[in-house]
Amino acid sequence: MHLTLPFGVTLGDSSGVGPEILLQAFHSQEIQHPIVVYGDLAALAFYNKQQVPLHPITTPADYTPGPLNVISPSLLERSDITPGQLNAKSGHAAREYVIAAAKAALAGEIAAMVTLPMNKEATQKTDPHFVGHTELIGAVCGVDDVTIMLASDQLIVTHVTTHCSLLEAIARTKRPRIQTILQLTSDAVSKLIPNPRIAVAGLNPHAGEHGLFGREEIDEIEPAIAWAKQQGMPVEGPFPPDTLFYLAVRRKRFDAIVCMYHDQGHVPLKLLDFEGGVNIALGLPIIRTSVDHGTAFDIAGQGIAQSGSFIKALEFAVRMASVQKDIDNVH
Amino acid sequence: MHLTLPFGVTLGDSSGVGPEILLQAFHSQEIQHPIVVYGDLAALAFYNKQQVPLHPITTPADYTPGPLNVISPSLLERSDITPGQLNAKSGHAAREYVIAAAKAALAGEIAAMVTLPMNKEATQKTDPHFVGHTELIGAVCGVDDVTIMLASDQLIVTHVTTHCSLLEAIARTKRPRIQTILQLTSDAVSKLIPNPRIAVAGLNPHAGEHGLFGREEIDEIEPAIAWAKQQGMPVEGPFPPDTLFYLAVRRKRFDAIVCMYHDQGHVPLKLLDFEGGVNIALGLPIIRTSVDHGTAFDIAGQGIAQSGSFIKALEFAVRMASVQKDIDNVH
Repeated sequence: MHLTLPFGVTLGDSSGVGPEILLQAFHSQEIQHPIVVYGDLAALAFYNKQQVPLHPITTPADYTPGPLNVISPSLLERSDITPGQLNAKSGHAAREYVIAAAKAALAGEIAAMVTLPMNKEATQKTDPHFVGHTELIGAVCGVDDVTIMLASDQLIVTHVTTHCSLLEAIARTKRPRIQTILQLTSDAVSKLIPNPRIAVAGLNPHAGEHGLFGREEIDEIEPAIAWAKQQGMPVEGPFPPDTLFYLAVRRKRFDAIVCMYHDQGHVPLKLLDFEGGVNIALGLPIIRTSVDHGTAFDIAGQGIAQSGSFIKALEFAVRMASVQKDIDNVH
Repeated sequence: MHLTLPFGVTLGDSSGVGPEILLQAFHSQEIQHPIVVYGDLAALAFYNKQQVPLHPITTPADYTPGPLNVISPSLLERSDITPGQLNAKSGHAAREYVIAAAKAALAGEIAAMVTLPMNKEATQKTDPHFVGHTELIGAVCGVDDVTIMLASDQLIVTHVTTHCSLLEAIARTKRPRIQTILQLTSDAVSKLIPNPRIAVAGLNPHAGEHGLFGREEIDEIEPAIAWAKQQGMPVEGPFPPDTLFYLAVRRKRFDAIVCMYHDQGHVPLKLLDFEGGVNIALGLPIIRTSVDHGTAFDIAGQGIAQSGSFIKALEFAVRMASVQKDIDNVH
């Protein structure tokens, strides 16, 4: 059932690299599945050097094979677009695309949503409370306990905290949140890999070295892991972060790592596979994947942005929709 | 002058992998320079499966080519050693080796010191204030502003903070300390690489994204970089950490990265080169290099520990002593 539905792609901030990545991928026939774009026609027209045929539609049910199907809210005019410039209008529009696609996914009109990058600062010009894609989609879906899983060919990671200051990340390293992420990670990885081995990173250097360099491991992380083991989850740790990534990637000792803060997982992941990383939302009632890069204002409009992460994000969405379809067929 | 002096090697915690690494490297003739060992004869005898000839001496001036020259404080007996077990006595002895070697280096009796790993928890059993090798040697030398530079074939990093909790690391991310580390890094890297390009990492995700995810970049890091640039140092930043390591390692855009906390640099460095990393102390009046791994209690005594990092640490000490000799000859 799901695979007959198109996949929704949100265009992201039109001042960034989203539109050109989409047009390039579509033009070069790297996209093998039916998609509908949530984004402004004027923005697509601005970047459309490839003369990709654009087909405006009002609902995913109107999907037509051949051209690029676009559900445009008409929030932007061509004159609003300046590649690489922080722009409140394109920041606001990007937010609206995401809300529209999330609602369509919830309504079962699209099989999944795949998101191109937003610029947080631009979106905050009109929505000061905006913190990130994942939180926004969570709000549309009415769920709080959401997180993203980052996947590349060499490494899969989840994060207990992501888009907040490092100080705030430490304050949020608490047992209930850790348990939630262990549960979401265990559920997701178990669907992708048989008998997975999931490692949990410490927060502090040397995982606190028995309390010498911080007590979060003893007070919060270890109790959460003990609980998860009791529930039968295949988790171990906490491990010293610097050794753990080596063990997982080079020695293949673990299939996935639960990280405590944004850069703990993002630094090694981007170092290993900068262009090909994919973000997968966990804890949502819908399937949502995303590119693992930002709006890249420094190269926007130059036609040099790589589409590898977007293509992989779409492939992952297709793979997950297929699993979901199998589950639906059983029930 | 310096190159005619032997190099001092401290044995580290004898319950860990230090003694077997040293004996293996010496036995296999990987050590091409005269060394004297600061460590207990009883500990070396315990691990000496290779029957390396041990030669007790009391001062580096007694160095004799051929056997392994050992300056032993006789703090341990053979029965004190159990490989892989946390041991207050071997923890204490390791501290004494380091103090003795640092004093010998200060007195000009050895060309440099190369340290094998200590176990912080073991040493803290008798010295609760012990935080790390570098701080201990700094205290012997009477200097506060010391740090370590980590070098591998692919990446050179320094750290504004190292062995403290992540919370404490944030509290210590202050302009004066950052400026000190920028100065030490610039001085050291400029000696090793002509016209170096040094990048400074942010503390927060996305380097704070203009204050959205923390203000340390705006309040502390950016002013420190502005000051360093005024002084003519080749530094740039702050950069989002996750992109920066990719740019430096894969795109070769930078020769060295100044990191804000321990794992920011240690995670990528160990992922890239687990066995071959070297620690180089900056800010000391003596030359000191070190292996980039711990006591590895889990494999101690099994004869499987790799000596690559130790050999590279010794090579780096020789290289730096050679530079120092050239400088001395000019003056």
